[in-house]
Amino acid sequence: MKKQYYVNGDWKSASKYAELLSPHSKEVIAQIPQASHEEVEAAIDVAYEARKQMAALTAYERAAILEHITQLFIDNRQKAADIISLEAAKPIKYALSEIDRTIETYKFAAEEAKRLTGEMIPMDAAKNGANRFGYTIEQPIGVVGAITPFNFPQNLVAHKVGPAIAAGNTIVLKPASQTPLSALFLAELIDQTALPKGVFNVLTGSGKTVGDALVESDKVKMITFTGSPAVGKGIRDKAGLKKVALELGSNAGLIIDKNVDLSQIVPKCVMGAFSNQGQVCISLQRTYVMNEVYDEFLEQFSTLTKQLVIGKPEDKATDISAMINQSEQDRALNWVQEAVEQGSEIISGGTIENGVFLPTILTNVSANSKVSCQEVFAPIVVVNSISSIEEGIDAINNSDFGLQAGIFTNDIQTAFKASKELEVGGVMINDIPTYRIDQMPYGGVKESGTGKEGLKYAIHEMTETKLVVWNQQ
Amino acid sequence: MKKQYYVNGDWKSASKYAELLSPHSKEVIAQIPQASHEEVEAAIDVAYEARKQMAALTAYERAAILEHITQLFIDNRQKAADIISLEAAKPIKYALSEIDRTIETYKFAAEEAKRLTGEMIPMDAAKNGANRFGYTIEQPIGVVGAITPFNFPQNLVAHKVGPAIAAGNTIVLKPASQTPLSALFLAELIDQTALPKGVFNVLTGSGKTVGDALVESDKVKMITFTGSPAVGKGIRDKAGLKKVALELGSNAGLIIDKNVDLSQIVPKCVMGAFSNQGQVCISLQRTYVMNEVYDEFLEQFSTLTKQLVIGKPEDKATDISAMINQSEQDRALNWVQEAVEQGSEIISGGTIENGVFLPTILTNVSANSKVSCQEVFAPIVVVNSISSIEEGIDAINNSDFGLQAGIFTNDIQTAFKASKELEVGGVMINDIPTYRIDQMPYGGVKESGTGKEGLKYAIHEMTETKLVVWNQQ
Amino acid sequence: MKKQYYVNGDWKSASKYAELLSPHSKEVIAQIPQASHEEVEAAIDVAYEARKQMAALTAYERAAILEHITQLFIDNRQKAADIISLEAAKPIKYALSEIDRTIETYKFAAEEAKRLTGEMIPMDAAKNGANRFGYTIEQPIGVVGAITPFNFPQNLVAHKVGPAIAAGNTIVLKPASQTPLSALFLAELIDQTALPKGVFNVLTGSGKTVGDALVESDKVKMITFTGSPAVGKGIRDKAGLKKVALELGSNAGLIIDKNVDLSQIVPKCVMGAFSNQGQVCISLQRTYVMNEVYDEFLEQFSTLTKQLVIGKPEDKATDISAMINQSEQDRALNWVQEAVEQGSEIISGGTIENGVFLPTILTNVSANSKVSCQEVFAPIVVVNSISSIEEGIDAINNSDFGLQAGIFTNDIQTAFKASKELEVGGVMINDIPTYRIDQMPYGGVKESGTGKEGLKYAIHEMTETKLVVWNQQ
Amino acid sequence: MKKQYYVNGDWKSASKYAELLSPHSKEVIAQIPQASHEEVEAAIDVAYEARKQMAALTAYERAAILEHITQLFIDNRQKAADIISLEAAKPIKYALSEIDRTIETYKFAAEEAKRLTGEMIPMDAAKNGANRFGYTIEQPIGVVGAITPFNFPQNLVAHKVGPAIAAGNTIVLKPASQTPLSALFLAELIDQTALPKGVFNVLTGSGKTVGDALVESDKVKMITFTGSPAVGKGIRDKAGLKKVALELGSNAGLIIDKNVDLSQIVPKCVMGAFSNQGQVCISLQRTYVMNEVYDEFLEQFSTLTKQLVIGKPEDKATDISAMINQSEQDRALNWVQEAVEQGSEIISGGTIENGVFLPTILTNVSANSKVSCQEVFAPIVVVNSISSIEEGIDAINNSDFGLQAGIFTNDIQTAFKASKELEVGGVMINDIPTYRIDQMPYGGVKESGTGKEGLKYAIHEMTETKLVVWNQQ
Repeated sequence: MKKQYYVNGDWKSASKYAELLSPHSKEVIAQIPQASHEEVEAAIDVAYEARKQMAALTAYERAAILEHITQLFIDNRQKAADIISLEAAKPIKYALSEIDRTIETYKFAAEEAKRLTGEMIPMDAAKNGANRFGYTIEQPIGVVGAITPFNFPQNLVAHKVGPAIAAGNTIVLKPASQTPLSALFLAELIDQTALPKGVFNVLTGSGKTVGDALVESDKVKMITFTGSPAVGKGIRDKAGLKKVALELGSNAGLIIDKNVDLSQIVPKCVMGAFSNQGQVCISLQRTYVMNEVYDEFLEQFSTLTKQLVIGKPEDKATDISAMINQSEQDRALNWVQEAVEQGSEIISGGTIENGVFLPTILTNVSANSKVSCQEVFAPIVVVNSISSIEEGIDAINNSDFGLQAGIFTNDIQTAFKASKELEVGGVMINDIPTYRIDQMPYGGVKESGTGKEGLKYAIHEMTETKLVVWNQQ
Repeated sequence: MKKQYYVNGDWKSASKYAELLSPHSKEVIAQIPQASHEEVEAAIDVAYEARKQMAALTAYERAAILEHITQLFIDNRQKAADIISLEAAKPIKYALSEIDRTIETYKFAAEEAKRLTGEMIPMDAAKNGANRFGYTIEQPIGVVGAITPFNFPQNLVAHKVGPAIAAGNTIVLKPASQTPLSALFLAELIDQTALPKGVFNVLTGSGKTVGDALVESDKVKMITFTGSPAVGKGIRDKAGLKKVALELGSNAGLIIDKNVDLSQIVPKCVMGAFSNQGQVCISLQRTYVMNEVYDEFLEQFSTLTKQLVIGKPEDKATDISAMINQSEQDRALNWVQEAVEQGSEIISGGTIENGVFLPTILTNVSANSKVSCQEVFAPIVVVNSISSIEEGIDAINNSDFGLQAGIFTNDIQTAFKASKELEVGGVMINDIPTYRIDQMPYGGVKESGTGKEGLKYAIHEMTETKLVVWNQQ
Repeated sequence: MKKQYYVNGDWKSASKYAELLSPHSKEVIAQIPQASHEEVEAAIDVAYEARKQMAALTAYERAAILEHITQLFIDNRQKAADIISLEAAKPIKYALSEIDRTIETYKFAAEEAKRLTGEMIPMDAAKNGANRFGYTIEQPIGVVGAITPFNFPQNLVAHKVGPAIAAGNTIVLKPASQTPLSALFLAELIDQTALPKGVFNVLTGSGKTVGDALVESDKVKMITFTGSPAVGKGIRDKAGLKKVALELGSNAGLIIDKNVDLSQIVPKCVMGAFSNQGQVCISLQRTYVMNEVYDEFLEQFSTLTKQLVIGKPEDKATDISAMINQSEQDRALNWVQEAVEQGSEIISGGTIENGVFLPTILTNVSANSKVSCQEVFAPIVVVNSISSIEEGIDAINNSDFGLQAGIFTNDIQTAFKASKELEVGGVMINDIPTYRIDQMPYGGVKESGTGKEGLKYAIHEMTETKLVVWNQQ
Repeated sequence: MKKQYYVNGDWKSASKYAELLSPHSKEVIAQIPQASHEEVEAAIDVAYEARKQMAALTAYERAAILEHITQLFIDNRQKAADIISLEAAKPIKYALSEIDRTIETYKFAAEEAKRLTGEMIPMDAAKNGANRFGYTIEQPIGVVGAITPFNFPQNLVAHKVGPAIAAGNTIVLKPASQTPLSALFLAELIDQTALPKGVFNVLTGSGKTVGDALVESDKVKMITFTGSPAVGKGIRDKAGLKKVALELGSNAGLIIDKNVDLSQIVPKCVMGAFSNQGQVCISLQRTYVMNEVYDEFLEQFSTLTKQLVIGKPEDKATDISAMINQSEQDRALNWVQEAVEQGSEIISGGTIENGVFLPTILTNVSANSKVSCQEVFAPIVVVNSISSIEEGIDAINNSDFGLQAGIFTNDIQTAFKASKELEVGGVMINDIPTYRIDQMPYGGVKESGTGKEGLKYAIHEMTETKLVVWNQQ
C-alpha cells in the first residue's frame, strides 16, 4: 500500500519511498513517502501562510473542531487501534486503551481551548503604576514543528496536535519512522473537520531530513519533541532562540515500604514494567523494596509475570508481543548480559522466544549496569532490596533522568519525605511511576526533558504571553 | 581602590586585576578582580553546597531576608546611587530613581516569596483519575548563574537576585565588566542579612572566563542573562538542557495617532528616547507619527530635546552624560553617519561634545539603516511619518526584535488592533514603550529573548514544578 | 393533559391540580400538580438521602452526565423550544435560541465540573506555618433548592441544575407556575441519563407552598432563586444562615455617545428592548442618548420598531407576542399611562392589540415614573437625551437596581470612566446591557441580587470550601 | 480615665458613659463613651462621604498605609499587649503573642492589597462571544460595619480593618463592650498614618444601639461580625440584601489515633484547651481518643494541666487568669455541674479559686451535655474514648457547629478519610483544631458562620466583582 503525505489539505506523493515492516510478522505493510528537504520547506510555508487564518478562529470554533476529532476517534476506535497494533506490534488491548486515552486527550484539548486566557496584572501595586490597566493575552505562537515517537503513535501525537490546535497554531508533524500510519490516519480524520486547510500537515520520512528541516526553519516558532535524550539534546543545540519542548526518557523508579498490601501492589508493578513491552517513557524500570517484604514481593512479581500471555499483537489475549524492531531486541539482550556479567541475577525472562523478548526480572543489579542507569525501553525490570527509605530515594535520585517515581507506603511522613526529596517531575504515592492521566502536568527534570505536557500546560507553552497596558489618564 | 570578590560570605582577592575607568572622567576608579575559571568553579561549588540549606528556609524566612535587603537599600539610597553614577556615568537623578526601583524590586520579591505555591490538579476529571489527589509544588531549581548588564547595575541585578532568593535558590552573579562596584556593594548589604553563607556570590572578571564557566557547569541549573542578542544566543547554544532566561535588546517603536494631545506626549517621548543616554533595552528608538501631526510633533520634540542639560553624571541637573565607553560612542556616531548617507536628516544632535554624545533626532530614516533596524543603545531616536496606523504597525513589526511597543491614540478599536497585531512582548497604550514597572511581566519575542521577568514570573522560571499524586484507595 | 411531578426518579400524581393556560391563546394546555407541604418535604428527604451517592461521583462521571443532558437537548431542540413557546408565549425563534443557549449552559457545566479544584495555601508564609502543607477542597454543599422564573423556562433552570450537578449536589426544583412544562420535560431528559435517582427532583405548585417549604427546611443547604426583588428579599429574610443566591431584576440602562455608527447600534437596541416582550432581567429599559445624535437615534429606533412582526408565538416570523399573562399586560399599560401623565411622550406602541402589548418607545420620561425607576418587564423602553456622559452615568446609577449597563462609544477614556463609575454588576462597552453569554460572571449589585451566576461562579457558590492542613513534622 | 470615641479623625466625647472593669481585679479601668443611635449615624455618614476618596487610592498607597500600621504595632508591641491584658485579663504572654499575630495580619493585608485583581474571562469560548474582551475588576464595597469580640481585641479587629483598608473601603468599628481600649489604641495608631480622615472610625457602646444602627443603615454595605451564634443570626435576619460575614463559634473536636507519639501531642492539647482561658473560637473542647491510648493520654494531659500557672494576667509566668466576667464564670460552673449530673467525671479543675476558673478536664461526657454540644468558651475540655476513627468522626460531626477539627494519625488513608468526612471549615492533620495562621482561609459551616476570613479571602468578600466586556468590532 503506497501512502501519501498530507499538506495543505491535499494528499501528495513523494519522489522517494521506503518499506514499512511489521515489527512482529516482519511483513511489508506499506510504502511510506520519504519527504525531501524541499517538500518539508513547502509544507512549512503552507503552515506559515495558514497561521493568520487559524489565529482568527474563536475559542468556540477551535473547541468545536477538537470535539469533532474526539468524536471521529470514538467512531473509529477499533480501526485506529488496529493500525497501532499493526505498525507498532502493540497488543491490541493496549492499542484500544491508547485510543481511549487519545479520545480523552483531544477532549481535554477542546475544553482547555475554551479556558485559555491571560491574567490581570495589579499595575497600581507599583509606585509608578497609578491609572494603568494591565493584563496579558495568550497569542498563538505560529507554526509548531512536532516530532513524535513510536510507542504511542496516536496519543503522543494527540499531545502535540491537540494543544497546537487549541492554542490556535498550525502544525507540521513528523511521526516516528516506524509508525507513520497512525499519523496519516489522523490526517484522514482531521480532513473531515472544519479545520482550515494548511493548519495540519503530516510529513513522513527520515528524522534527519524532516526533523532537521523543521528545527532549522525560521518560520517554525516552536519544536515539540518526544523521543530519545540524544536526539532531544541535538534539537536543543540547533534550535537557537526557538522555543523547544522536550519529553525525553527516563529509568523510572519505585520504592516499596514495608507494611503494605503486596497483593494490591504487585499486579500494578507487572503492568508498569511490561505493558507495551516496556516501551514507555515511564515504564517501571527500577524497583527498590524494603528488606522486610523483598522476598515476598519478588515471588509474587515473578509468579504474575510468568502468567503473562506472549503472542501476536492482534490477539485479544496477548499481553506481550515483539519490540519495535530487531536491533532494539538485540540491544536489550546485550544489556541483560552486561547486567549479569556485573552480578545481576535473572529471575525470569532474559531471552527471546518466537521473536518476542520475554518479560525479564533482574535482581541484585549494579547501579552502573545499563539496565539500571540508562533508559531500557524494553520489558526488563530491576528489583533490588533496600534497608531504608532513604536508600531507595538515593538510588532513584542517582540517575541522569528524572521523569516520574513512585512509592507505596502507608506512612504520612514517609510519603511527604518522598514527595519532596525524589528528584523527578512527578511523584506517585501509592501508584507505580507509570501512572499518567492526560491532563496532568507531565515532564521531567535533568535529562528527562524540558517543558510540561498535559493539555493546559502544553497549550500554555504553545502561546506567546503578551502584556497589554492601558494608561487611563 | 583594590576590590575583592565575594564568595561563601568571604571577601577574596584574585590573582589578576583590571582597572575600572569612569566613563565620563576617564579616571581610574577601582581595581577589579578578574576571576579565573577555577575561582568560578570554586564559587559554583560553594553555591551548590549551600543549596540544601537555602531550600530548607521557609517562605517567611526568605521574605524576611528580602525585606531586610529592601530596608538596607532605603538606608543606603544615596550611596548606592552614587556608585551607579560613578561607574556607569548615569546622571545622578536617574541613578537615584534606579535605586527607588531596586527597592521596589526587592520588596516585590519579598512579597512574592510568600505566595509561591503550586496548584491543585483535578485528577478525577480523567476516567482513570478516580481517588487520586494531585497537586504541584514549586521547588527551588538550585544554583542560578546570573549575568547582568551595565545599564541598570543595581536594578537588573535585583531582577536576578531577588527572584532567586525568593525561590530558595543560590546564586553566582557575574556583573557587567564596567559596573562591578554596584554588585559588590550589594554583596556588602547582603552580608548584613541572615542569608546563609554561600547562597549569594559575586565574581567579577571577563564575560568569557566567568560567563563560560557558569554556562558550562553541570552544577549550575539555570542561566539568567540580560544583555546583547549576540551574547545571549551564544549562551543558549552552549547551555544544552539547562534552563536559560534571556532578556536581550530591542529597537522599541511607538505609534502616534492623530487627534491626541501632543503636549502630554512629547515630554514622555524625550524621556523615553534619551534617559540614561538611550542605553535602555526599551529605549524609544523608532517613532512613527501620523502625517496630520508629524510636523507639530517633530517641532515640539526638537524643542524639548534641546533643553536637555548635558553634563557630569554627578550633577543633579544633568539629563545627559557620557555613554558607557568611547567605542560605544564611536559606534553610535558611525551609525548616524550611515543613516545620513542613506537619506536621513538630522534634526538635532548627531555629534559628540565634551565627551558626550548629544541627544540625536533623525527623520526620514530608511528601515535598513542600523539606527532603525538594530538596537542603537545610544541617545538616538528615529522619527518618521506614516499615513495609516497599519503602516506604523508594519514598520514596528519589520524588525528582528520585539520587546515592547507603544501607541498613543484615543480610539478604542485602534488600541485593540495595535494590542493584537504588534509583535512584541508588551504593548503600551498611551504610554511610551519604555514604560516598565518591576512586577509586570516583561520579556520579548523574536531575538529580544526568551522567558519573562517581573518578580512573580522570574520566580516561577527559577523553580521546578513537581507533580505529586496520592492514591486515596 | 394531566402532568405528574418528578421525585426520586418516579413520576407522581398530586392531590391537587391547577389549570395551565396559554398566555397567547388563553386555552388550557395542561393540568399541573400542586405539591403540598408534605410532598415537598418528602422530596427534600429524597434529595437529602441521595446526597452521599451524588457526592461520591467523580468529576468525570458528573461531566459525562452533563454531556448526556447536552446531547439530549441537541436531539430534542425543536420539541423543547415548542414547549417554551407554548407555555410562555415566547416567539419560536427566541425559544429555539433559548434552547441553543441551554445546550451551551449544560456543556459549560460539564466542562467546569472537570476543573473544580481548590487551591494551595502558602502556609509557610506565616511565622507559625513552617512544615505545614495546606490546601482547600471544594465539597458539595448538599441539597440545593432551586426556584426559577418564567422568562427563560429552560435556560434559567439550566443555570441552577447544571452547576448543582457539576458541584455534586442534589436538587429540588420549583419552576415558575406558568412554565412547569419545560422543567418537567427536563426531568424526562434527565431520567434517561445515569444521574442517580433522587438527585434531581421537580415539584410544581404555588410559590408560597413549595418555595416556603424549601426555604424553611434544615436539610436544604442553599436556595438559588431567580425572580422578582420582592420575593427574593422575602427568601433572604427567612433563610437564616442558609446560603442564598438571588438573581433579581433591574431596569437596565444604556448610554450612547456621539460619534458612533447608529446604523450598527439601533438594531441591537431594538432587540435588547423588545425580545421576549421585554421580559428579560437585562432587557434594555432606559436609553440615554447624547444630544448630538438623539433625534437621529430616535427616528431610526422608531422605524425599526415599527417593522417588528406581531403575532402568534408559534409562527417563525413573529418577533413579538403576548406577555406572560393579562394582569402583567394591564400593569404595563398602567405604567405607560402614569409616565404619560408625568410628561412622557409615546413614540410608538403604548397599547394592546389582539392581546399583544405593542412594543413601546417613550421619551422625555421622568426618573420617577415607574417605567424608568422600577423593573418594567414588558416591551417598553425609555429614550431620553443627555448632554454629557456624566449625566448618563448619573441617570443609570440613580436606581435601586444594578445588574448590567451598556455604553456605545469610540473613546478610550470614556469607556474606562463608564466601566468604573457605572454601579452595576456588568458593564458592556459597545454592546447593549442585554448582552449575556452563559459562562460569564453574571449578577447584580444593590437590589438586583447577591451572588454570581455563570457556570464557574455558580458552581463555586454551590460548594463548601474546606481547608485541609497537614503537619509535616 | 475618660475615653473618647474616634470619628472623622477627631476624638469625641459622648453624652453617656459606662464604667469598664478589669476582669481580674474588678477595678474600674476606664470610662467608656456609649454612642447614641445619632452618633452612630453621624459616623456612618462620615464613612460614606470618605468612600470615594478612599476608593481613589492606589494599591501602592493602601499598602503603604497598612505597612505603616504594621510598623506602629512593632514599635508599640508591649503597650498594645498591656492594654489587652488589662481589659481582657489575657495573660501577658498570650497578649504579646496576639500582638505578634496582629503585626502579621496587617502585613499580609498590606501585601494582599497589592495583589487584588480580577480575572480575564474567555468570552470567545461561547458561540456569541466572538470579538469580546472581558475581565472582572474588584471594586471596594463601600462602608463596612465591623463588630468584634473580646477574646482577641486587637487581632480580630485587624481581621476586619486590615482587609477593609486593603480593599479600599471605609470602616465603622464597634469593638466588644469589654475591650474598647484596644480598638481606641488602634485609632491612635492609625491617626498617625496617611489614611484619609473619615475612613476609619471607632464607636464604643452597647451592641444593641451601635450594632443595630450599623446593621440597619442603608449606607453600610457590609457587616462583618465575629461573635456568638445568637447575635450573628440576629444580624443576618435583619440585614436584608446587605452582605454579611459571620465568624461564629464552635465546639472544636480532635481525634487521636493509636500509634502516635503522645509526648508530642499532649502539650499542644493543653495549649489548645486552655490558652486564653479557653475563650477562643477554635479552643479544643472535645477530644476523642482511641481506646488503646486513652488512659495514657488522660494521665499525661492531667499531669500537664496541673502544672499550669494560675495568676494575674500581667505576670509573665501566668498561664491562666480570670475569664472575661463573673457571669461567664458562673455559666461555666453551671455547665460543669450539669455534665457531672449527666454522668461526667471531673479529672481536674471544675471549681473557681481566687476568682479564676481552674482548667477543667471532664471525661465520659454525654453528647447532650452543654459542655459538649454547645460552645463552652471557658477553660473546659472533654476527653472521651472511642473504639474507631469513624466513631470519632461521627462524634465531631454530631454538632450544630463546624469551624475546625483536628486529627493526630500516622496513617495516610485515615488522614484523607478525616479530611473528607469531618463537617467543618478546616481539618488539621497532626495539629490541634486551634491551629490558625492569619492568612489561611478560616470560617465554618453550619452555625459556625458564613464567609471566610484570612486576608485574601476577607478582602475578596469586601469587594464587588464587576464584569467589564469590550466589543472589539
